[in-house]
Amino acid sequence: MKTVVIFSGGMDSTILVYDLIARGDTVKVLSVDYGQRHAKEIVCAKGIAAQLGIEHRVADLRSITPLLAGSSLTSADIAVPEGHYAEDNMKATVVPNRNMIMLAVATGWAISMRFDAVAFGAHSGDHTIYPDCRPEFASLMDSAIRLADWNEVRLIRPFVGQTKAELAKRGAELKVPFERTWSCYKGGEFHCGVCGTCVERREAFHLAGLADPTTYDTKAPTVAMMVRDNWRITA
Amino acid sequence: MKTVVIFSGGMDSTILVYDLIARGDTVKVLSVDYGQRHAKEIVCAKGIAAQLGIEHRVADLRSITPLLAGSSLTSADIAVPEGHYAEDNMKATVVPNRNMIMLAVATGWAISMRFDAVAFGAHSGDHTIYPDCRPEFASLMDSAIRLADWNEVRLIRPFVGQTKAELAKRGAELKVPFERTWSCYKGGEFHCGVCGTCVERREAFHLAGLADPTTYDTKAPTVAMMVRDNWRITA
Repeated sequence: MKTVVIFSGGMDSTILVYDLIARGDTVKVLSVDYGQRHAKEIVCAKGIAAQLGIEHRVADLRSITPLLAGSSLTSADIAVPEGHYAEDNMKATVVPNRNMIMLAVATGWAISMRFDAVAFGAHSGDHTIYPDCRPEFASLMDSAIRLADWNEVRLIRPFVGQTKAELAKRGAELKVPFERTWSCYKGGEFHCGVCGTCVERREAFHLAGLADPTTYDTKAPTVAMMVRDNWRITA
Repeated sequence: MKTVVIFSGGMDSTILVYDLIARGDTVKVLSVDYGQRHAKEIVCAKGIAAQLGIEHRVADLRSITPLLAGSSLTSADIAVPEGHYAEDNMKATVVPNRNMIMLAVATGWAISMRFDAVAFGAHSGDHTIYPDCRPEFASLMDSAIRLADWNEVRLIRPFVGQTKAELAKRGAELKVPFERTWSCYKGGEFHCGVCGTCVERREAFHLAGLADPTTYDTKAPTVAMMVRDNWRITA
């Protein structure tokens, strides 16, 4: 199968790329620059794609960022919230309709290359605070994508029934270079260790029983402290 | 109702904007620059929005044009085909997944403003050579868009049961300044009169029994010749 993977340079999409390649797919990867606070994840994505020798394209959508105002991921004047994804304050990280926009662009690229599928690394822990992470949404998008061209392109989410910890185990089997992936919402020198996506990353390695090769900011609490506090940040 | 209209500066979307305003809607309009051969339609769109005193935004998606290669609307090395839309050679004007991309961006804007709907000017003559003009596609996109945020945004296509000639009549009632709208796929000084969208425009005025205020290139055949040739270009 020929597959375009929506590729952030984070853990989940990197594991997905390794997994599809191991299954024999022809893979090209697409990152979307929608005006994130930092370009770090795109730099990481480029590095991983180069190591794998696969084509990597960046869809530069920064010009539409002003239309999508109101998210801390794109607005420098809104603080990145700290703590576990499940908390209510994480709603500030929602970029309006981000998933539909990414899927639409990836599908256009897939159609133009006559590829078979668009894949993304959704897993069972994806968060209902993001309305466009709901399974019903993905299912409707799959149906719409299949009708977007005469040559049917499918939307696949191979990890949707698995937890992020299970993904981490699969990534370890596939020798994914986790230390080259980037999750943190902040763009510091190291992962901050306390934003929603850092907490989720640390929890996944912990639950998988794997050593976490990530370098976190020295101010971040230890994993033992995180476990004690039930993965919530008590500032 | 508060509505974002996908606005090309052509006849159909201009009539839609006038129609929604006449019905009392609050309207903002979005044009998408996906690297068309010419910027003429966006210039026309700006002029019409300024005359109406409504907010007009342009989503600049030119950076993704290379991903969507293969269409004569975005590739300077593929000729714009001439003749009626119904003809097979019009397939060259398909931009892969253009409608989903435009709808996704418009929906993101609508969500960020807490608007109620995204509207586009599809009519009954829209062409099955464009897979993403099929009613089933629009219906699935409506369902997906409703799930894209906790505040439901709807996709509306008020003209979907009407012909373009009926739209032209409605536009005349609403005193739409047709002479300020732009349809032609080519970016000449005047409408070429022979590309698919020019032929469709001329046919609509003719069938509506309206004088066509458009200035066509002097090399274009007259309406009488077009009618005689059944709206096909016999080059």
